[in-house]
Amino acid sequence: MACLLAMKPLHLIPLIALMSLSAGPIAAQDGKKQAPPPAPSPGEIAAAAPATDWKDIAADDLLVMTLAPGTEGKPRKVLIQLMPAPFSQGWVSNIRTFAKAHYWDGLTIYRVQDNYVTQWGDPEDDDAKARKKPDGLKEMAESDYTAPLSSAEKTELADVYNLGRPKPTKAHEVFVARDPYATIDIFKAGWPIATQQNAKWPIHCYGAVGVARGQRPNTGDGSTLYAVIGHAPRHLDRNIALAGRVIEGMEFLSSLPRGPNAQGFYEDAAMRVPIVSVHLASELPATERPHVQYLSTESATFLKYADARANRRDPFFLVPAGGADICNIPVPIRRKP
Amino acid sequence: MACLLAMKPLHLIPLIALMSLSAGPIAAQDGKKQAPPPAPSPGEIAAAAPATDWKDIAADDLLVMTLAPGTEGKPRKVLIQLMPAPFSQGWVSNIRTFAKAHYWDGLTIYRVQDNYVTQWGDPEDDDAKARKKPDGLKEMAESDYTAPLSSAEKTELADVYNLGRPKPTKAHEVFVARDPYATIDIFKAGWPIATQQNAKWPIHCYGAVGVARGQRPNTGDGSTLYAVIGHAPRHLDRNIALAGRVIEGMEFLSSLPRGPNAQGFYEDAAMRVPIVSVHLASELPATERPHVQYLSTESATFLKYADARANRRDPFFLVPAGGADICNIPVPIRRKP
Repeated sequence: MACLLAMKPLHLIPLIALMSLSAGPIAAQDGKKQAPPPAPSPGEIAAAAPATDWKDIAADDLLVMTLAPGTEGKPRKVLIQLMPAPFSQGWVSNIRTFAKAHYWDGLTIYRVQDNYVTQWGDPEDDDAKARKKPDGLKEMAESDYTAPLSSAEKTELADVYNLGRPKPTKAHEVFVARDPYATIDIFKAGWPIATQQNAKWPIHCYGAVGVARGQRPNTGDGSTLYAVIGHAPRHLDRNIALAGRVIEGMEFLSSLPRGPNAQGFYEDAAMRVPIVSVHLASELPATERPHVQYLSTESATFLKYADARANRRDPFFLVPAGGADICNIPVPIRRKP
Repeated sequence: MACLLAMKPLHLIPLIALMSLSAGPIAAQDGKKQAPPPAPSPGEIAAAAPATDWKDIAADDLLVMTLAPGTEGKPRKVLIQLMPAPFSQGWVSNIRTFAKAHYWDGLTIYRVQDNYVTQWGDPEDDDAKARKKPDGLKEMAESDYTAPLSSAEKTELADVYNLGRPKPTKAHEVFVARDPYATIDIFKAGWPIATQQNAKWPIHCYGAVGVARGQRPNTGDGSTLYAVIGHAPRHLDRNIALAGRVIEGMEFLSSLPRGPNAQGFYEDAAMRVPIVSVHLASELPATERPHVQYLSTESATFLKYADARANRRDPFFLVPAGGADICNIPVPIRRKP
């Protein structure tokens, strides 16, 4: 990542040049002082994290969505991590129920709106032809879009806010204060969270997976989901339930043709992308389960990573921004080595 | 736009239901008081603007990029509006020079990195096989990434900032103050602009078109361009020249397959998307010129529109956000009626 918008592909740059940009100290010449090594990029910081900073994602929190192969015949798998407590647990429970009932198998992606969302489920929903839903679904209230702050969180946030601390001083104190959509944003257990007064809620960043719904007070049951494929539509925060995020295979949702009809719907059924299956990883045979990890947002590495996202000091950059919006600090994800 | 994430396509909703959501007052019943009409959406506010609020984009500020037809055989045209003074005028001058010399005709889109950029130009740039560049190109300094604030702007911004005004009170006063990347953002002549102390600069929003460059102090000549296809990479502001924005046909850049190689490069030349031609609209025959307009950011309509983007009150929404980041207030664009 030494040359983010380089004019030539990296593979054309001799390896030695790359190394001098991104690795090791520069050799001393003529006994003069060594120049300091170039600052690492955020990606390099994450890659250098100790193994203990990476946390496993539980198989019961992981959805594996397999789409029909694309025009090139390649398999298309999308991994979705489900939202942890205390957020959206009613919808997450329903999503597990739908997956176990194989509700989505054979349904489609039927809406792709540019700079907004890719949506999947049953395009005949609400019609006589609608697919039967499994038993045991929960109904959620609009108040479930947010969760109350704990007393510990209130104290912690009041402290952060009153001191007006310009930079975090502890490993768990990565926060963003200049957000038009919230008072303070924090990271917790691998997720970006917005807070305000007494409430906290998950954030519509790129790749976030939400629960489509009808007009208020309908809150959606989780049968129809969407993923954010453009600039974070933060005005949806607190207005729709977020149930997870895409952590692998995002390109299979973001690079689909935009729907020609209003709001990106594929009115022509031939455009729809068939969903082969959606399984909980915990329902797959052990040998087929993907093992994925996130970089602990409570680690010292994440603090360094977030600081580097907000202040790019690697050689490509002239001016460090001095800040970052919460959606520009994506939590690093990797396959377990 | 009454039902942003509706579970069923809009065309399935009876027209009368749509009308009750988005148009006119609800009929009085039994002599009781009429309910107030639902608040209009941002799109409805823009659509209702008087003709005088729409400003023509000059043909010399408009690039027409024609890509080879896609797999469905449909034509793919992308319109790019060039950046106005005082920003990036050296690069904009070069881009006009490249277009007039037909430099890009026959070159390719050769990089698509998910949630980041689509890049085009000469993949052989810097090699012996590189395409010859036209004469008369300018060289720009890193200081050209920003422009100084005028004294009038300094007074205006100091006033806005010191008063801590929570809401703009004049038509030209649409600003965003809680931005991690700048002190105050403003709109000017149709463009989102970041400001800080004595400087102002254009912003990397979705669809922004920038000038790829090599390592510092190289600033790029405009021969290789990229468009932002994901969450606004604001850390690039002040670090790379922005030269314009995509105002039509964005889906032809954003829905391309992501490149399988590092940073999204298409190493396989067969994946590259051929550029048929890039013309300045002013060089096209009068009958072929697209006529495009933007909603004046100095109009009362834009103020209402921006306020509605920051505070969604249309019936789908439960909680108005109370703010918006500058990239979530895209300036409305339309074909001249």
